[in-house]
Amino acid sequence: MQWTKVLGLGLGAAALLGLGIILGHFAIPKKANSPAPQDLDLEILETVMEQLDAHRIRENLRELSREPHLASSPRDEDLVQLLLQRWKDPESGLDSAEASTYEVLLSFPSQEQPNVVDIVGPTGGIIHSCHRTEENVTGEQGGPDVVQPYAAYAPSGTPQAVNAAKHGIAGVLVYTDPADINDGLSSPDETFPNSWYLPPSGVERGSYYEYFGDPLTPYLPAVPSSFRVDLANVSGFPPIPTQPIGFQDARDLLCNLNGTLAPATWQGALGCHYRLGPGFRADGDFPADSQVNVSVYNRLELRNSSNVLGIIRGAVEPDRYVLYGNHRDSWVHGAVDPSSGTAILLELSRVLGTLLKKGTWRPRRSIVFASWGAEEFGLIGSTEFTEEFFNKLQERTVAYINVDISVFANATLRVQGTPPVQSVVFSATKEIRSPGPGDLSIYDNWIRYFNRSSPVYGLVPSLGSLGAGSDYAPFIHFLGISSMDIAYTYDRSKTSARIYPTYHTAFDTFDYVDKFLDPGFSSHQAVARTAGSVILRLSDSFFLPLKVSDYSETLRSFLQAAQQDLGALLEQHSISLGPLVTAVEKFEAEAAALGQRISTLQKGSPDPLQVRMLNDQLMLLERTFLNPRAFPEERYYSHVLWAPRTGSVVTFPGLSNACSRARDTASGSEAWAEVQRQLSIVVTALESAAATLRPVADL
Amino acid sequence: MQWTKVLGLGLGAAALLGLGIILGHFAIPKKANSPAPQDLDLEILETVMEQLDAHRIRENLRELSREPHLASSPRDEDLVQLLLQRWKDPESGLDSAEASTYEVLLSFPSQEQPNVVDIVGPTGGIIHSCHRTEENVTGEQGGPDVVQPYAAYAPSGTPQAVNAAKHGIAGVLVYTDPADINDGLSSPDETFPNSWYLPPSGVERGSYYEYFGDPLTPYLPAVPSSFRVDLANVSGFPPIPTQPIGFQDARDLLCNLNGTLAPATWQGALGCHYRLGPGFRADGDFPADSQVNVSVYNRLELRNSSNVLGIIRGAVEPDRYVLYGNHRDSWVHGAVDPSSGTAILLELSRVLGTLLKKGTWRPRRSIVFASWGAEEFGLIGSTEFTEEFFNKLQERTVAYINVDISVFANATLRVQGTPPVQSVVFSATKEIRSPGPGDLSIYDNWIRYFNRSSPVYGLVPSLGSLGAGSDYAPFIHFLGISSMDIAYTYDRSKTSARIYPTYHTAFDTFDYVDKFLDPGFSSHQAVARTAGSVILRLSDSFFLPLKVSDYSETLRSFLQAAQQDLGALLEQHSISLGPLVTAVEKFEAEAAALGQRISTLQKGSPDPLQVRMLNDQLMLLERTFLNPRAFPEERYYSHVLWAPRTGSVVTFPGLSNACSRARDTASGSEAWAEVQRQLSIVVTALESAAATLRPVADL
Repeated sequence: MQWTKVLGLGLGAAALLGLGIILGHFAIPKKANSPAPQDLDLEILETVMEQLDAHRIRENLRELSREPHLASSPRDEDLVQLLLQRWKDPESGLDSAEASTYEVLLSFPSQEQPNVVDIVGPTGGIIHSCHRTEENVTGEQGGPDVVQPYAAYAPSGTPQAVNAAKHGIAGVLVYTDPADINDGLSSPDETFPNSWYLPPSGVERGSYYEYFGDPLTPYLPAVPSSFRVDLANVSGFPPIPTQPIGFQDARDLLCNLNGTLAPATWQGALGCHYRLGPGFRADGDFPADSQVNVSVYNRLELRNSSNVLGIIRGAVEPDRYVLYGNHRDSWVHGAVDPSSGTAILLELSRVLGTLLKKGTWRPRRSIVFASWGAEEFGLIGSTEFTEEFFNKLQERTVAYINVDISVFANATLRVQGTPPVQSVVFSATKEIRSPGPGDLSIYDNWIRYFNRSSPVYGLVPSLGSLGAGSDYAPFIHFLGISSMDIAYTYDRSKTSARIYPTYHTAFDTFDYVDKFLDPGFSSHQAVARTAGSVILRLSDSFFLPLKVSDYSETLRSFLQAAQQDLGALLEQHSISLGPLVTAVEKFEAEAAALGQRISTLQKGSPDPLQVRMLNDQLMLLERTFLNPRAFPEERYYSHVLWAPRTGSVVTFPGLSNACSRARDTASGSEAWAEVQRQLSIVVTALESAAATLRPVADL
Repeated sequence: MQWTKVLGLGLGAAALLGLGIILGHFAIPKKANSPAPQDLDLEILETVMEQLDAHRIRENLRELSREPHLASSPRDEDLVQLLLQRWKDPESGLDSAEASTYEVLLSFPSQEQPNVVDIVGPTGGIIHSCHRTEENVTGEQGGPDVVQPYAAYAPSGTPQAVNAAKHGIAGVLVYTDPADINDGLSSPDETFPNSWYLPPSGVERGSYYEYFGDPLTPYLPAVPSSFRVDLANVSGFPPIPTQPIGFQDARDLLCNLNGTLAPATWQGALGCHYRLGPGFRADGDFPADSQVNVSVYNRLELRNSSNVLGIIRGAVEPDRYVLYGNHRDSWVHGAVDPSSGTAILLELSRVLGTLLKKGTWRPRRSIVFASWGAEEFGLIGSTEFTEEFFNKLQERTVAYINVDISVFANATLRVQGTPPVQSVVFSATKEIRSPGPGDLSIYDNWIRYFNRSSPVYGLVPSLGSLGAGSDYAPFIHFLGISSMDIAYTYDRSKTSARIYPTYHTAFDTFDYVDKFLDPGFSSHQAVARTAGSVILRLSDSFFLPLKVSDYSETLRSFLQAAQQDLGALLEQHSISLGPLVTAVEKFEAEAAALGQRISTLQKGSPDPLQVRMLNDQLMLLERTFLNPRAFPEERYYSHVLWAPRTGSVVTFPGLSNACSRARDTASGSEAWAEVQRQLSIVVTALESAAATLRPVADL
């Protein structure tokens, strides 16, 4: 019964509900009219905060989620035009906007031959069929544009079995258990449209491709002329037919299974004891020797998918980019995923565009707005963009801000990001009032839900680390650009749902958001204000608000974990952590010294070139953690601090993973050599990071 | 008879004789005292040109070449101290100087068991022995510090044979034929110390390691803590024992060989007909069934080798580096290789250091002087340096200037470099008088020896392209930094010597240079002035004098070669050059437009930040041609325009090589897929280059 283990796949993340208005009091007085260099203007910031309008976000969302807009569908193309129109608006548009199109390999179910999951009786007749579509409970789950539930990139095929072969599985069925998504609830009257929970017929779609980016053009932009890998040589697709089903259908299958009881952690809320098979129960709904037939007819298709890019040209440093993006494509209507983010993107670009067109404001640095295509299939639009513009993005990008699902729920802010962005998010959120009752700032509300004890700052909100759940992945892992993902999310004391319940189903609609996730759209507004403030601070501040010394805490905690949990093991194999200790100490010292130099300069009237140099050190620090040769088997992942960690010790991922593999091998094995190699890679990266932070004329 | 084909190995390059004084007239008037940004100061430039002193260069060379200074030897360490002392001198030193030491794997002959090449008679007795040392003709070829001739990194072993196995060669003897090195001359009275030609006992040492950098730490700096590859897994060492011998000994072996006549192109100037063996002639000096015994006792040793780095801090843009370097280690005295370059390095640092210490001058950008260790073993010091400081060097380095052997001969300047450095070398050399009679500039003299017809400029001196012959290799191939190598060299109508005749022998001494290569040291002075002017122009000019549009000619010529010589073949396999044409055209247009924008700005009073942005585009253009995944089998080589080309068509190397391999395979083969992949890699790089040159707020 592999399927219960397949739970949790998909490219989304986690969320709560709230309300928000901003008081907009800013402590620092605005500078007098002087020849001082252009810096963050607090009046402009306050204006932007005030003008970000919950009602307009709601109207954006209504339009964006009006129809299903699967990647490369006609409606997806319509939304490209909608974005272009908004960003070229003479009253509220940007300096320029354009669509850029890639030819990418997507995967769709067949229109003519729907994927089917049937129970076939002993005589070969179909005695039960799983639902092929979700139930049309609000009138939005029907229609030709609602794509049939499927597992993208799963190969076609028609395996027939009931968990027959423990080794040699022929096909996979995937479902979402009410225990994991619905806090255990499963009846129609307890689920949408009567609550935010997933109806029994809801099926979670998703991409089952292992890597990200266009599968045929790894490391090359998927322009028509680019070399494409032969399909036979593509790696990362699921090896066997796979199909997602709703928990209603899963109950029919699972509750009739025979065999030994599944482990306790595999049990769920379908109202029966889950068994492992093989075969059906003699006293169940189906003859014991019935079989499950899975027929998958997915097809791979080369399709055009567009990114839309809009630019506000920087007044002083146009070659420094603050990138802000979200994907546009959804599985069905995608009101939450991704339109809740796109609704904010449009409102932010409207407010900033209006100031721009009025001549009131132009940022110090350039701001690039991006609407990515085909994210749901594997972050394809954003990845192709980073492949096409690798060099200039790596050289010039200050930070990447991602707002995909902006509101999972309305309890609290949740930010994932690398340490240098922590301080700018803190600065922004301390000045914005939290939605909901009371007079808390977003920061003060946030710290109640996610917090940690920092050796430097005491109790602070805790940032999560960036995986590969949305379009920030190529920016942080492939380009080494400091990145963050911002959303409002859950009160975990109120729900244990893995993610908002209608995720990737046909029930993720405007009404769902409007009635259940964020009535009044105050959480949307809070996220818009947070993102807006972060963008303005990054694009307008004379000194870049990236605090690289905040990496010291991460490095120190990784080092301590290595010492405590791997130190003895490494010593047994004559591997010393000494050079790592030295490298971390060097980083800490250089980061602190750079902080001091900045503080000193900030008190004077520094030359713009001097500040530019310091800012470049801050901007480029994250790049020093990249090593394209560190993880040859992990496509695109080259950040030695944030690459995927499979080892159990929460330390440098290369070290953790290599130790986990070497643990049971003898000294002198290749696995132990790899441990030493990974240790050297980290030490070299940290030494390189420290060298980048040193005064620039010291080698 | 593989050996005659092994000729030409070694890590040096090619040179003539001359005399030079400078008139030092500069056309452009110095700007008035104004708040104009710091720019190239022509008075300072003139002062530097005047103060670069031939006599001091001669004295530097005398001291540097006084003793053999093999990498990591005590005398090599003494020279580290000499450099530190000069660069820390309070009157003429730099802002800072330090040595940085790596622990690297070198290869030496055994002191106790010298390598031997003997002829063993039929009864097993030695009937002839090759010389173990060179003849002590000037008193400098003896002594314990003159390393025995050997092939570094050749494994030890004692094969015995006379070309016995055509397939399954057991050992290799290498010699330099008088036809290749001595214009055919070989008698003692025709060779050094009676002429510049190699004496009969001279043996060319060299490294036989296939890659560059420390063999145990590819891609990691060879600091003591770094992971080292297990010796058994090191690739790139010669597989069989190898030993170099002099042509005197080669004559004894070769002129007594039996068998069929060797091909005409293999014949040389030893005064006999070269035969292929096997066995010796019955009527020769040795019994026909004699054998050649080669005993190699080379040992690999981990040794400390230092780079010395000296820095002049930039006044305005200290985070932009102009790097100027040469290696310090030699095989024996190394008066030409490398001390002729180091003598200039010291004189240039003295002249600039003196202006600095007097407070007369400080460059706009930082200047980094480097004395690399262990170049002769495979560019080890420079490569480790680029590995240790990869990020900051790649982000900040304007250009790398290499002067290794500064004077091969005294006829003409010879420059190898990438296209963006052409214009700064032209500007410099037009203003410096050529050594020798007449009133020519170095430029006007140069164009008489090396020239080409440029579609843009008409007849101009031609720059050579950069291989891997000296320390520029890691900078251009691994880091993508615009680089050049400067020297004075031969009149090819007067000699066909492959390189100056005493290259890598114990006859490369001070007297050799003083009497034969450059009496009066005027060619040394000319190279010092050229390098000095280039350094000042790169470090002091407000607008960087890197003309990226000069890459257009290279790209256009590569494209034309591809069209003419590969077009039909590609078409047969349905591969279009259309996207490459488009990419080259885009590059040409963007480079020209950028040139226009710069010209326009130069007429006004541009803001320093504006100029910095343009300069960054110029500086970083070369980086866009790097692709670390382009040539996975070629260690460090990632520049898609200058990687090694094995295919015969002079075009993009990846395309040329892939076509050469695919030519005889069927359409649809993996080899043809690789052609398409290489084509896409080049197109992507050129598109990326064009994107980098576009106005910075256009994506």
